[in-house]
Amino acid sequence: MRQAQVFRDKQNINLVTGHCAETIDPDRQTVTGKKTDGDRFEFSYDKLLIATGAAAIRPELAGFDLPGVVVLKSLADGRRIKKLLQSNRINQAVIIGMGYVALEMCESLVGLNIAVDMVKPNPVFLPWLEPAMAQAVKAELEAKGVGVHAGHAVESIAKTADGLQVNCRDLTLYADMVLVGIGVTPCSQIAANAGLELSLNQSIAVDRKLRTSQAHIYAAGDCADAYHVVTGEKAWIPLALRANRAGWAVADNVCGQESRLDGIAGTAVFRVFDYEIARTGLDMAEAQNFGFDPVQNMIKSGSKAHAHPGNTAIWVNMIGDKKSGRLLGVQMIGKEGVAHRINAPAVALHNRMTVQEYSQTDLSYAPPFGPTWDPTLTAANQLLKRL
Amino acid sequence: MRQAQVFRDKQNINLVTGHCAETIDPDRQTVTGKKTDGDRFEFSYDKLLIATGAAAIRPELAGFDLPGVVVLKSLADGRRIKKLLQSNRINQAVIIGMGYVALEMCESLVGLNIAVDMVKPNPVFLPWLEPAMAQAVKAELEAKGVGVHAGHAVESIAKTADGLQVNCRDLTLYADMVLVGIGVTPCSQIAANAGLELSLNQSIAVDRKLRTSQAHIYAAGDCADAYHVVTGEKAWIPLALRANRAGWAVADNVCGQESRLDGIAGTAVFRVFDYEIARTGLDMAEAQNFGFDPVQNMIKSGSKAHAHPGNTAIWVNMIGDKKSGRLLGVQMIGKEGVAHRINAPAVALHNRMTVQEYSQTDLSYAPPFGPTWDPTLTAANQLLKRL
Repeated sequence: MRQAQVFRDKQNINLVTGHCAETIDPDRQTVTGKKTDGDRFEFSYDKLLIATGAAAIRPELAGFDLPGVVVLKSLADGRRIKKLLQSNRINQAVIIGMGYVALEMCESLVGLNIAVDMVKPNPVFLPWLEPAMAQAVKAELEAKGVGVHAGHAVESIAKTADGLQVNCRDLTLYADMVLVGIGVTPCSQIAANAGLELSLNQSIAVDRKLRTSQAHIYAAGDCADAYHVVTGEKAWIPLALRANRAGWAVADNVCGQESRLDGIAGTAVFRVFDYEIARTGLDMAEAQNFGFDPVQNMIKSGSKAHAHPGNTAIWVNMIGDKKSGRLLGVQMIGKEGVAHRINAPAVALHNRMTVQEYSQTDLSYAPPFGPTWDPTLTAANQLLKRL
Repeated sequence: MRQAQVFRDKQNINLVTGHCAETIDPDRQTVTGKKTDGDRFEFSYDKLLIATGAAAIRPELAGFDLPGVVVLKSLADGRRIKKLLQSNRINQAVIIGMGYVALEMCESLVGLNIAVDMVKPNPVFLPWLEPAMAQAVKAELEAKGVGVHAGHAVESIAKTADGLQVNCRDLTLYADMVLVGIGVTPCSQIAANAGLELSLNQSIAVDRKLRTSQAHIYAAGDCADAYHVVTGEKAWIPLALRANRAGWAVADNVCGQESRLDGIAGTAVFRVFDYEIARTGLDMAEAQNFGFDPVQNMIKSGSKAHAHPGNTAIWVNMIGDKKSGRLLGVQMIGKEGVAHRINAPAVALHNRMTVQEYSQTDLSYAPPFGPTWDPTLTAANQLLKRL
């Protein structure tokens, strides 16, 4: 409540806490719901922003509600996990899921000397990544002692005498804590109930000005979809930068300063142990689905000049379109110099550059930071031979 | 000679050593010169490539020829310096010049526990860099014990009883070794003598196919000029990537596979002690000279997410054109995450993006690698308010 007051004083925004919005009426332009004290409320609006975010997916799984089974999306989730860890009773953990959050949490837990097993139904580890690169990351996890059990669907979680057990058909894993990190889903029910158009994964469909199918209602953040700059089609890739940027754009549009968002390139990076793993644009399956004729080529280069001390491998997989020559996507892994290197091809995607055009770009070089030809340029030069 | 044989065997190229080319006759299509043994030679050609590179500038300075006074450009120069250093008699060094090579050598020498003074006539340290950023780098040098004497023209070098002394009007510096690192100059005399058109700094003028003013003669590398992607005009910025790329392009063109180079963005990075210093595009003075109406804005951001351990400052100065809104250049310094971050704006320059368009790009984010808004995006958002 004190924070709400600060918000009012500093921003001159009437931040109303303890009000749960339940219904939007686009015709009457009202929002109704229930207060913490049980009373009903109704607000009317000229412009409305839906910024309900996304929620952790909670599977219908026997034992999901047991103590020690957690998800990680909200600050409250984080505090719950922290409390569990501070109990000092967590020696082994099972993580269900192998996406960004699952892998980042794996690193954190191993850093606390907790034995970690990861499990998911798809037998392919990081399926969007070029297979040899995915294998290198998997080997890194296994070298750190993580059990990577891809290809096992969890059927139930059960309580044991002194902990939890995670049951798959051919596999049983034991844990003091189970983290379910299988993704998020847009909080779009209130929008759906109001008749707003939904999009991919039940996200709220918005145009480039962040307007929903009702012109007075905007949506921004993980609850809303976006245009993809490579395909020109809708995409739902809930990540922080887009969410933040969309919030700004809605503020501008509501205040009468027109703001349009070009779209997203699907650029992402995460760290797991010693590896940085990054991507931008489409993977092979996505490129095929969108009607491109994709060709990929993977190269290994170095994070520093050839003879420079500390030089480590950088792997770049680049995907181009055989028909148009366009750059479609890049994936990269390495122990340094990956996180920001992905941004040059990301900007290229915004400009619909061909692989040939990208191969001509003037990127930085000094021996401590890479080879004369940046690894993404070497990737482009080599991919050109296949296009 | 053995290496020349390997080259012949592996590449099927008749590498001729011990032949000093002296004269090109574009009409007769011949190259003549003198062999090591004193005999004359003449080769005729269908296509000729001039790849003579650049040489360290050797000032007309009393004492420049003294033992212990060195330049650094060739492998032989490097070996000479290494031998001097291995003599264990070098306790103090003076570096004349404060460019990339001078600063990189400063770091190397300090790393060998050699006391270093740097001196140059221009009172402005790193004049192409935004002043507060240049000051931060200068402070870093001084914190490492380096004497930075900008604003002092060296008038002579003299021998003392036990070393060398570098004389300026109001300053005398003592040294066991003096490195003269005041830049390079294109080796274009043979081209000039043949009547080929010269360009900026006496570099050899070439078109986008690397042809000189004589269609049968190509030039590539530090001896040749280039087009700048921001100005569309000629530039001479001798750096490794362009030199290398131009060599490839000539090979393609000579072999009948047409290759055109778009041009350079002037992207560069170097490290000095704990700082990475990078630039792409134009600085303020260059932008003004080329008729733009440049506006710059400098921001400080972080190398990691706000609360992440190890977060250090990243300074970004972004320059845009008030008339067109175009992005013209970016300069960046910081203790990590600068070297590759400069490449996203570099690609933007190749695409003639506006600052507004750049501000919309989808760049990577994860807490270990930066804030949600990449520092270059924050720079763009803030610069937009001034455009």
